[in-house]
Amino acid sequence: MPHIELESHLPGITGLLEYRKDTGEPIRVLTQILLRGPSTLTEAERELIASVVSHGNQCKFCTAAHTAAVDMLLGEHATSEMVKADISTAPVSEKMKALLTIAALTGKSGKLVTPENIAKAKAEGATDIEIHDTVLIAALFSLYNRYVDGMATAMPDNDSYFTMLAERLVNHGYSRLPQGYDHLKK
Amino acid sequence: MPHIELESHLPGITGLLEYRKDTGEPIRVLTQILLRGPSTLTEAERELIASVVSHGNQCKFCTAAHTAAVDMLLGEHATSEMVKADISTAPVSEKMKALLTIAALTGKSGKLVTPENIAKAKAEGATDIEIHDTVLIAALFSLYNRYVDGMATAMPDNDSYFTMLAERLVNHGYSRLPQGYDHLKK
Repeated sequence: MPHIELESHLPGITGLLEYRKDTGEPIRVLTQILLRGPSTLTEAERELIASVVSHGNQCKFCTAAHTAAVDMLLGEHATSEMVKADISTAPVSEKMKALLTIAALTGKSGKLVTPENIAKAKAEGATDIEIHDTVLIAALFSLYNRYVDGMATAMPDNDSYFTMLAERLVNHGYSRLPQGYDHLKK
Repeated sequence: MPHIELESHLPGITGLLEYRKDTGEPIRVLTQILLRGPSTLTEAERELIASVVSHGNQCKFCTAAHTAAVDMLLGEHATSEMVKADISTAPVSEKMKALLTIAALTGKSGKLVTPENIAKAKAEGATDIEIHDTVLIAALFSLYNRYVDGMATAMPDNDSYFTMLAERLVNHGYSRLPQGYDHLKK
């Protein structure tokens, strides 16, 4: 049972974003920019970062939601599961392995990210902005994970909820992008 | 040395918010709403939450910045130091002790917040929105701490920097509030 009264038909983060819409709005906008805005990382790669961090923080709702989004974007379930089980042997590029490692460490503590982790990512072709965005996505999901679990939000009654949520995240995103992005949209 | 090239005269979070202004904007707005927007918690109480979480996450830059803000708001240094040393014996209200405890736990993991922690806060008079905001401020500073340390940002050369930063945070805040808040401003 959530620690405060939230709308019972809105599990996980969804009830919180509704409970205080004014704080929900900048959280949605930040997520939209980072996960759906212009980037040299694909949407699936950015959702993978969200899923790995949420998995590391043991946030069931966020892990299920962003794993479902990755699966829908990739059209298969294997990659997301293999990344959560072991980044080093997962079927992603060497660059993504290095970035996902940085994300997983950041999710625990930013202090765990070493110059060697960064050098490895750069050697595999990661740019400064990709490294920046990886760390900020990991930091943002550390916020989400704490918000969702710190308020003891409910899980949905049925796992099919996450397929529905993933459809929304893949097809409609997290928010509208702020002004100034219109010319950059796909 | 930061993991990516940031403007060298902008330590800690300041260089990051400048590096990617588009992601910086919603982070600033969220912080302004939570720490400076209408609330039954004082600005000093909300800055104390930020300082306790940053201290727990061992983020030197954020701890120094928000401790300096608390000190400037309260006009003394003792309270912030005593809260960081031991919440239970610090010179704050029983309600604030309960909320600061929830914040410190959330900073580690949302899963650590128990129904007993929440019941204690409610028994001391904390409202649902105060509990919500405490958890979200703690989650937000868990983002900041990871962002600042995950990018290995620099500390300022001189501690007087934090007095200057606190003056800015106390007198000018983190951002302008979004539209719709004008009638609520003090």
